[in-house]
Amino acid sequence: MSFNWSSVFAGRAARMGASEIRELLKVLEEPDVISFAGGIPDPDLFPIEAFKTAYNEALSTKDSAARALQYSVSEGTPELKRWIAHYMGSRAMPCGPENILITCGSQQGLEFLGRIMLSPGDRALVAWPTYLGALQAFNAYEPEYARLGVRDNAPANERPVEGEKAKFAYIVPDFDNPTGRTLSIDERHSVLERAKASGGAVIEDAAYTELRYEGEAMPSLLALDIQTQGSINQSRVIYCGTFSKTLSPGLRVGWIAASASLIDKLVLVKQASDLHSPTLNQMAVAAVAETNFTAQLDKIRNAYRIRRDAMLSALSRHMPKGFSWSRPEGGMFVWVEGPRGMNGRALLQRAVKREKVAFVPGQAFFADGSGQECMRLSFSLANPDEIEEGVLRLARAIPE
Amino acid sequence: MSFNWSSVFAGRAARMGASEIRELLKVLEEPDVISFAGGIPDPDLFPIEAFKTAYNEALSTKDSAARALQYSVSEGTPELKRWIAHYMGSRAMPCGPENILITCGSQQGLEFLGRIMLSPGDRALVAWPTYLGALQAFNAYEPEYARLGVRDNAPANERPVEGEKAKFAYIVPDFDNPTGRTLSIDERHSVLERAKASGGAVIEDAAYTELRYEGEAMPSLLALDIQTQGSINQSRVIYCGTFSKTLSPGLRVGWIAASASLIDKLVLVKQASDLHSPTLNQMAVAAVAETNFTAQLDKIRNAYRIRRDAMLSALSRHMPKGFSWSRPEGGMFVWVEGPRGMNGRALLQRAVKREKVAFVPGQAFFADGSGQECMRLSFSLANPDEIEEGVLRLARAIPE
Repeated sequence: MSFNWSSVFAGRAARMGASEIRELLKVLEEPDVISFAGGIPDPDLFPIEAFKTAYNEALSTKDSAARALQYSVSEGTPELKRWIAHYMGSRAMPCGPENILITCGSQQGLEFLGRIMLSPGDRALVAWPTYLGALQAFNAYEPEYARLGVRDNAPANERPVEGEKAKFAYIVPDFDNPTGRTLSIDERHSVLERAKASGGAVIEDAAYTELRYEGEAMPSLLALDIQTQGSINQSRVIYCGTFSKTLSPGLRVGWIAASASLIDKLVLVKQASDLHSPTLNQMAVAAVAETNFTAQLDKIRNAYRIRRDAMLSALSRHMPKGFSWSRPEGGMFVWVEGPRGMNGRALLQRAVKREKVAFVPGQAFFADGSGQECMRLSFSLANPDEIEEGVLRLARAIPE
Repeated sequence: MSFNWSSVFAGRAARMGASEIRELLKVLEEPDVISFAGGIPDPDLFPIEAFKTAYNEALSTKDSAARALQYSVSEGTPELKRWIAHYMGSRAMPCGPENILITCGSQQGLEFLGRIMLSPGDRALVAWPTYLGALQAFNAYEPEYARLGVRDNAPANERPVEGEKAKFAYIVPDFDNPTGRTLSIDERHSVLERAKASGGAVIEDAAYTELRYEGEAMPSLLALDIQTQGSINQSRVIYCGTFSKTLSPGLRVGWIAASASLIDKLVLVKQASDLHSPTLNQMAVAAVAETNFTAQLDKIRNAYRIRRDAMLSALSRHMPKGFSWSRPEGGMFVWVEGPRGMNGRALLQRAVKREKVAFVPGQAFFADGSGQECMRLSFSLANPDEIEEGVLRLARAIPE
């Protein structure tokens, strides 16, 4: 007789569900599908030669190789933390290595923050829609979600409730996943104020921030809060950064920047979770960031800008009446809203089967499963010709 | 005013404490300290050239590099899972890739298992003493610990209680951390029976299993349970393996092998936690395991056997009356028990300050903080001359 695993599962296991994106990715292995689904960087843009040199050098001398392959400290390697602290400083977020924890992608940062803050029933403020992976990271800790209004004219159910308490507000302020939207300065201040009024922290997910294709960089929520509070050690904002969208997602190198007293606690979480991020990868990422970061940003911004333009152009030419979409200044995503009564999941099935084009249905990104008339289109992986063809196919898949 | 982080912490954060080992490691940076503290492989034994070749090849062709640096599936790369499934089969634990999840070291496996099984107050059976990192991984989920008797003549408080329920029993059956002990066949069966009687799973931590310096390999708990149950899919045993003690700890590559239905659920945990383990490291470890695993085992077994012998010899020549210690057939640790009234922490302070030798006090390994007369000595990092000198120093630090 098989062992009944559900008899030993904790209550929280019930909220560890399968991801729609994950199931989708299985379809995408078919060769002739054009995918607007994952938020996946184009591997043709990876700085392969720079990484090859960096790995080779890290393993070249005996001392360096011994260090690269050995256990290291939980908080992260000093040179990578130094590079990140310098980078943060250049973006008006002065901090020291004591304010940085290296994580396995920003996904791990989100999971740690859920673990350290959320007890069952605690409130977390999230945008409606928001990043699916954040919901997955938090879900294990059984929060209740409330709507974080981030638009200037937020509907009544996204506005603060008198006396509302929350552990944190989670937000992607730049080129949001999934909507592609960027918060205005006023909207940034209002997120900070709402978090403050609720007694909670702010989790700022900056995954896409460096992928700006037009307009001026906006100050981060952390930068704004440092202006008011005086220093990162006084701030309630926790900044989650990553090299996944700039250098390489497969190496799983991200970071949390926050008050040193929070980082001290998170280092213990990291230690209990996986001891530390792989030493060699941290060394290689630090080396490539040092030599190639700016050039790499130029390269990917130019490539993705062309794709964004191709997608916006194709949408305006091919989509039927009743559809509207965001016009992102950066990032990887366009958010499409269809007419009332549209069903994103049903459309996906038809689109994949009949037209060989894929996207992520909007429902995946709403904590309450609403949003069925929406879809997220990513323009990062397909080239401009494929984008044109894919949008044409998508439009064909839409029923009259 | 600084933000008060403890106002947003979950109840579980209270049990995320600092590790004694971690604090110790700071002392060890002083150059002339002989360390018997960490369970740290000797970097002189790392297969550096093989890793250099493997990383170079993974990044050599465009297709391979694009894959190495890209997102990959949460369960792990196919070639590494295949190698592990083959390895498991060769050790009487037949399984397929669907029974394997790649983790960031076995530490991550332990943390996932705590997360998926433990609600506050749930019982976990652990040896007294046991691996400190396992306690840290489980502590966040607020279990109560009960003593798992693993010795043939276990004291009354380590024996099963009538009607006892537990979520799991956790055990390091081979060359235990911290005791160095290896369970007999009868003891293995009795762990399986006790878990079964309590309705719980068994977590088998096989971190040191390949480091055997004498005697015959013992069947794993999973192998024994497969004999009875018919297949891994019917077994209650969850096997945590790692390349940390054989190939490299710094790359953070380990695995969980278990029933496919549990692995399916754990893949979701992995996805929510960090999406996947770094692709490139999995490719490199698979390549080095394929070409170098057996030769590497020969090399490290020979080196560590000599060190174990040096430590046992030095202990018998230098330690004062009233001290006894384990005689491990493998692994990295000798467990020393001092006379009643000895205080391991106080001895450590004196040993480090006066004699420049370090170890881990026994209390770190007891879920209830007992064991103050014990200490764990690791022989893996120091060479035989240093071991001789270190034990001499340790003996000198012991008060009359």
